[in-house]
This record gives sequence, structure tokens and C-alpha cells, in this order.
Amino acid sequence: MECDILVIGAGVLGFSSAYHMKKRDPSKRIVVVDKQGGPGQGNSAKSEGGFRNIFTSSTNYLLADCSIDAFKHMEEEMGHDVKLEFIGYLWLFSQRQYDAIRPAVEAIVNRGDGVRVLTLEEVKKTIPCLVPEFGEDEEAELLGVEDVAVGVYGEKCGGLDADALVRAYEEEFVKLGGEIMYNTEATRLMLKPVEELGLPGEPFVWQDTVVVGAETSKGEILAEKTVVAAGVWAQRLLDPLGLDSFQRPKKRQIFAFKDQKLEPFFKMEGLNEEGVMPLTILPKANILFRPELSEGSIWLGCADDIGRRFELEEDPQPEEDYYTNNIYHVLVKYFPCFEDVRPMNMWAGQYAINSLDETPVLYEAPGICYVGAASGSGIMKADSLGRILDALVAGEPEAELFGGRMFRVADLGVRHRHVEHEEFVI
Amino acid sequence: MECDILVIGAGVLGFSSAYHMKKRDPSKRIVVVDKQGGPGQGNSAKSEGGFRNIFTSSTNYLLADCSIDAFKHMEEEMGHDVKLEFIGYLWLFSQRQYDAIRPAVEAIVNRGDGVRVLTLEEVKKTIPCLVPEFGEDEEAELLGVEDVAVGVYGEKCGGLDADALVRAYEEEFVKLGGEIMYNTEATRLMLKPVEELGLPGEPFVWQDTVVVGAETSKGEILAEKTVVAAGVWAQRLLDPLGLDSFQRPKKRQIFAFKDQKLEPFFKMEGLNEEGVMPLTILPKANILFRPELSEGSIWLGCADDIGRRFELEEDPQPEEDYYTNNIYHVLVKYFPCFEDVRPMNMWAGQYAINSLDETPVLYEAPGICYVGAASGSGIMKADSLGRILDALVAGEPEAELFGGRMFRVADLGVRHRHVEHEEFVI
Repeated sequence: MECDILVIGAGVLGFSSAYHMKKRDPSKRIVVVDKQGGPGQGNSAKSEGGFRNIFTSSTNYLLADCSIDAFKHMEEEMGHDVKLEFIGYLWLFSQRQYDAIRPAVEAIVNRGDGVRVLTLEEVKKTIPCLVPEFGEDEEAELLGVEDVAVGVYGEKCGGLDADALVRAYEEEFVKLGGEIMYNTEATRLMLKPVEELGLPGEPFVWQDTVVVGAETSKGEILAEKTVVAAGVWAQRLLDPLGLDSFQRPKKRQIFAFKDQKLEPFFKMEGLNEEGVMPLTILPKANILFRPELSEGSIWLGCADDIGRRFELEEDPQPEEDYYTNNIYHVLVKYFPCFEDVRPMNMWAGQYAINSLDETPVLYEAPGICYVGAASGSGIMKADSLGRILDALVAGEPEAELFGGRMFRVADLGVRHRHVEHEEFVI
Repeated sequence: MECDILVIGAGVLGFSSAYHMKKRDPSKRIVVVDKQGGPGQGNSAKSEGGFRNIFTSSTNYLLADCSIDAFKHMEEEMGHDVKLEFIGYLWLFSQRQYDAIRPAVEAIVNRGDGVRVLTLEEVKKTIPCLVPEFGEDEEAELLGVEDVAVGVYGEKCGGLDADALVRAYEEEFVKLGGEIMYNTEATRLMLKPVEELGLPGEPFVWQDTVVVGAETSKGEILAEKTVVAAGVWAQRLLDPLGLDSFQRPKKRQIFAFKDQKLEPFFKMEGLNEEGVMPLTILPKANILFRPELSEGSIWLGCADDIGRRFELEEDPQPEEDYYTNNIYHVLVKYFPCFEDVRPMNMWAGQYAINSLDETPVLYEAPGICYVGAASGSGIMKADSLGRILDALVAGEPEAELFGGRMFRVADLGVRHRHVEHEEFVI
């Protein structure tokens, strides 16, 4: 089998890339392969589905801000119900935390886009079910739970249905004539000499080489260009070539709740039009949760850092104990309404973490382009990353993001990488 | 067992770090552990032992330049025979290659330090055994071997005995009272809550944690600070913590030759005082070789890039076929004196490659410091990296390198990383 462009990975980055490439030139034969049986089944659809344009790095901001606009367009103009809910993001900080991050917050507020700082009084008034101060509470002290002092609220933020988003890109790609092969695992990238001699042992060290496609569980697929968008599995394909994905896989878990006790989160005036709790990040232990409006549930995650291992798992599993013995104790301190509420559902996925600068990586080598290392924010940056990947494949130095802002492709590359360190990491 | 500082890895970075920390405060109990039975037995002693101060990145330049001065001091003032031979480095470029790298070369030449550009005539005159031009040679065309057009020669470069260098640091460390445990494998870093409660399941996600030492094949070793200097094996220790070593392991092979035919390399006037061939890098396939003066042999390596896999091997093996069928054909084109010469010895080691910026990484997390990702130039930067690691452990923002030049510790870190991309990579 032969095609112009082979995309490995039917996740959100694979399909956004495939769609934008197909849109540029519908005459190109573009094939997406994935070992899973459907779209986004690797990690995309397992995401909490939060999106935000609150980033300190202007690179991350631009990638997300334009993607959010694109998602809005997909919903409003293209008829895809990706359940985009602008319920906002609310970061709760202790005074100590806020003092450390204050210059970064001020820079973000000055950027505009509906980011504002809430005083403790405003936080209390808006979120009556929050306990922001603990006085002499010994358990709070033991847990290291600090009083809330400040909130940072961003309105161009919220939640979306990651699964629906992947399917929307898939649908648009297919509409243009794009091809998909599910249950097709790319097992090896085929590296060939540019000028093949037909001798045993090729490619030799003195030969220029090029990736000419991939061996898959359904046979060889030859391609002019192979795009590796395989998420946490990318390194397996890149290892034999000696190329780096600049990411390590880390498990992330989502716990979903549905309980009468949690109704206050769905009746909360003052921050967003929906009158619900924003996606909220606690000042302790990187715990975050958001109301999922279509099913009326709360989705909660925790971005544990040191101690949560890097490990590539085929089918990562959630740990109920992780909620019960870990997250729960902190959560009920701030939000007593969670008391005795048990998750009705839980699942786990994996982040592809670039710990160096927490920013995605895109680069090319002969015959191949790589996009990844999205560090958990690949969904909210998916449209921009797909356009940048398309520009990279097309050999253009700049990509036009949704809405017309331009992005220098090499900024996300290796050789001329130019990104800022991100302060707002979850 | 308890100590102040536990250093994991008895390679050149481990011992340089241990020595500089012990020198700062000889009252500290510092223990170096290694799974091998002696110093440098991981990859340090397997190095080709080239050293150079020719780097485009001013960071890399400073790290190497000061380390070379330190090695000279160790030999001349401290009585360590590390076989430092200032035979120079000679980069041979085709016109095409030189045009691409010209601004970088000019910047290096302007930096001073005895770097100069040799015209083709000068190269020809100095190295009579080199064939620099191939005319209509069809085999040369097939091999993609280009005519030599320019040489870049650096005089503060050459070869040293990597094994002897590691032993020199070991000896100085032991003289100061440092302790070493060989045949002792660190199997796991011990992560504990800062305030331990004695409950099952600790550390919990809401607890601050700290590395308190390591489990080893000879029992637990508790330490105030644990230094991970485990080279390509570092990620195995860091994975369970979810910390990144920012490196991938890649095999590198050395082929050693001793043959009358190679005598011209030991009688070559005009470049260095020793009257020998400098360490020379061919314009094709990243092949390099140098005379090893103490045994009168030639050591040859090849820094193959795409196609040489990333893989962690316990005991990487050289591939004779790799010389015979790969390197050989290019080598004899430029240096026909290699014709029919077979390696008398060969071995393999591993580089810890940071493909992103080709520069070492040093950072700390609670209880732990990491040094690595030296990308194949850890030996020639070892003294500086040991001093910077020492400054990091001591909490100092700047390290004084040998000779008094200062280095900002955070420049090699993650959060405030500030390094330039390196153009002169072998």
C-alpha cells in the first residue's frame, strides 16, 4: 500500500494534523492508522477535557487561545457538538503561593482575555460551599492545607468533550476523502537509503537515509512522509531510529461523581453564564475538578508530581485507593460537600510529559515529522498543533493559526527551539 | 548505614562531583556507590578520550575549556598521569559543509584559544597521506564522499586517558577521606514524607516528600542528599519518582588499530608539538580517529546518528561488521593507508544523549541532585560539572570553575535553563 502521507495515531493530534494537511491539498492521499479500534482511544478520549488560555508562556497561550477559537468555530459554524462549555478556570492560591507567582499572574491579567484576580471576599461570596480558612484545625495543619487567599479566574476557559472533539476532526478529515485504518498497529518505521543499492546490510553509515513509511500489523504502508502523532507510544517508534520524542509517560486518573451533595456546584452565580462552578484548582496537591454539564457529574483529577512514576502502560488503571486515601482528605477540607461521596466511575490515561519546558515539540527528520510532548495540554492546543504540523510538512516557515495569527514553526522544533518556561502547569 | 551525601555512580561525573564536595567540606561523610567493581567501568573508561574546547555554545566552551585547564593542573601540579596529549582536533569539511557552518567557525576563531582555519593547500601539505580530492572516482561518488575544502584546527584539544582521569579523581576523593562501595547497586531511591506519620500508604499526595537515600544491593544507605550521577542508567532510578534525566542512551564503538601502514599518522609535522596526526573528523559519516600515543595505536569511532537506536544495554558490544562494511569504505577513500588494516581491538560504550540542546543537565529536587545528559562530552567537561554539582548541593547560585571563571548553576537546570544550541556535535 502506498500513500502520500501516513499519520500514525488517531488521537486528537493525529486527526487535527491529518485534517489540516488534507484541507491544504485534498488531492493528497492521507492515511491515518491506529492500533485502537476507534478515534482517540489511546489517551485523547480519557482526558478531563479542560481547556484554558491561561498560560504564562506566550507560546502556550497562542497555541491554546487560537485552538479554543477554532473549537468555537467548529461548534457554531461547522455543526460539531463538542460540548464546549465556557465555565472558566478558577485557580485558588494561598498567600504564599500567590506571592511566588504574582508577576506571572499580573502579566497574564495584562494580556487581557478576561483573566481577573478575585479577592478572598469575592471568592467566598461566589463559592459559598468552599471552606477557605482553617483557623486552628489540626487536621488541616497535618495535611498542610493552607488558607485560600486569592483566586485567579479566566473566562476563556472551561471544559469540552475530548472524545467528541477527536470525532469532529475525524469526520472532517473523512469528508475530504481522508482514509483511516483502525486496528492497525504501526510496528516499525522503515528507514531506507535515499539511493538504494540492493546490498545486504543497507542502510550503511555513509548512506543518506529517509523514512519511507511503516510496517504495520496489516502490512507495509509506503508514504512520502510519515507523521508520528502516537502520543506516549511515540518513543517506541522513534527508539530504533535514535530519535527523541522529548517526553515521558505519566499516568493521570479521573474520578467521576454524581451525588445530590454536589448540587451546589451546579448552582453558583457570579462567575460564568452557566451558573456553575468553574474548573477549579485547589491550592494543595494539584487537585482539580470541573462540572461535566451534559451528565451533571463532577470530574476530578490530580496532577501528582514527584512520586508518580514515568511508565508506559498499555492500559493504565485508576486506583480507587488513590482517591480514598489521598485526594479525599484534602478535598473535603476545602469542599465538605464531598464528604462520604464515592466516585461512580473512574478511569486513567497518560500524559506525555516534557518536563524541560512543558511545551509541545514538533520537528522533522528525513521522511518523517513528529508532533508530541504536549504535556497534558494537547487537546486544548490541538487545532494549532495540527496547523503547525501541516506547515512543517509543507515546508513553510510559518503556520497560520485559526483567526489569522502566525506562528513560527521552528519555535517548537529542536534546532531553533524558542519557548518560554511555563509557570501555570497542572 | 548513614552518610551526608550519597553519590550514585563511580564514573567521571560521580567522582568529580564527590571530590569537589569533599574538598569543600572534608568533615562531610560522602559515599560513592557503583554496581561495577571499579571506577569508570560503566561508560567513562570506554570513551575515546578526546577533549576539545571547540564548541559553538559558550556554555559548552566554558565547561570544557576550564576542565582542560584543570586536567593540566592535575597532571602538572598534582602528579596524576592522565596522559593529556595536546595533539589538537582537526575538522575536515567539504565546501558545502563549511559554507553552512562558516559563521559558527568564525565566531570560534574570534574567541581565540588557538583555533584556526586551514586552506586546502595547508591541509594537503600538513597531511600528505590524506586524499582530499576524488575527481571522477565513481566509488567516491557512490559513497557520497565529498572533496575536502577546509580544515578547522584547534590546539587546546587532543586526547587523554579517560580511565586514568577517573582514577585520579577517585584517588583525590579517597585522600580526603571519601568512601567508596563497589559492587553495590543502587536499586531504588527512597522517597519519604518530610513529616512521617507512620501510616500505611505513605507518602500521600498531600505530603511534602524528600529523597532520603537509596536501597542498594548491600542494604539501605540513608543520606541528607543523594547525587544521581549514574550516566545512562540514571533514568532507571528517576523513573519511579517521575523525574526526567533528559537523555537517551546510544551505543558508540571504538576500533583500535596498530599497523605499520599507519605510521604516517605518528610522523606529521606542522600542527602539534608531538608531530602526530591530530584527532581528525572526516567530512563524511561522523568518522573520527586519533593516535593514542602511549601504545602507538589509532583509536577510531563513528558518531552515527539516524538509524543508531536508543537502547539501554548492560554490556554493549562492538560490531566488527560495522567497521568492515560501513566505516572502512569511507575511511580508505580519505586515508588509503588504512587499506586492509583490521582492528586489533574494539569495544563499545554508551552516550547519554540530550538531543534537545546537546548540553549537560543539572538540577535538584527535594533530597536529590542529578547530573547527566552529557551527550558524549562528559569526560572533557567533568571538572566543571563536578564543581557546578558541588555548588548546586551547597545551594550556591554560582560555581567557580578551575581558573576562576564563574558559572551560573541554574543555566544547566530546568526551570531557568539558559544554553545555546551546539553546532559542533560529533
